[in-house]
Amino acid sequence: MPVRKFAFADAALQRSPGQDGEIFAGNVVDQRHGAAVTIGFGRFGPHQSLTETMAVDDVMVILEGRLSVSSGTEIFSAGPGEMVHMPKGEKVTIRSHEQGAATAYVTYPHWQEARQ
Amino acid sequence: MPVRKFAFADAALQRSPGQDGEIFAGNVVDQRHGAAVTIGFGRFGPHQSLTETMAVDDVMVILEGRLSVSSGTEIFSAGPGEMVHMPKGEKVTIRSHEQGAATAYVTYPHWQEARQ
Repeated sequence: MPVRKFAFADAALQRSPGQDGEIFAGNVVDQRHGAAVTIGFGRFGPHQSLTETMAVDDVMVILEGRLSVSSGTEIFSAGPGEMVHMPKGEKVTIRSHEQGAATAYVTYPHWQEARQ
Repeated sequence: MPVRKFAFADAALQRSPGQDGEIFAGNVVDQRHGAAVTIGFGRFGPHQSLTETMAVDDVMVILEGRLSVSSGTEIFSAGPGEMVHMPKGEKVTIRSHEQGAATAYVTYPHWQEARQ
């Protein structure tokens, strides 16, 4: 597997499964490449909300905008350059605000396989 | 394992092993937490260079500055918001330029264990 570089524009964004809001994700590396991890970029429109129980470990890096992530009684607000680790098995709600958000993510194992 | 949020300042940066340059890394999540992946932040001073054969899959997100990553005959230049995937087994050289760089990284499996 070669070393590769990815920019946001390399991701073919699709609506995130299981929701009909303005939340999109696009893998740039995943099971199709025989990689160990899935790598991708995401976009949240303004005032969106997504709740899910994590099927995989997911690390999200905020590139633009801001997201609030709540789990149990905790809530975090993350902005550009900050990371949120959402471990497998945790139930999380991710909310965007006025300006929406752009993210980069890495999951282990592959989230598309774990959801099947 | 709880959901957690990390900022650059949360990383206790240490000189990257096997080199004496101005290249620093600090894990915020790793084998000590029973996590599936290692998560951390890194800093490259100006005009640094690091060559290594990857012991793990490493995904690096550029937060500030710019890095050149070469592997074999390929060379990539990555700036803010861009990602570089360095798969296990690949030999890579990472170079910083005038302004240095700040990064976020995710490795699978844990890089500190793989190096032992």
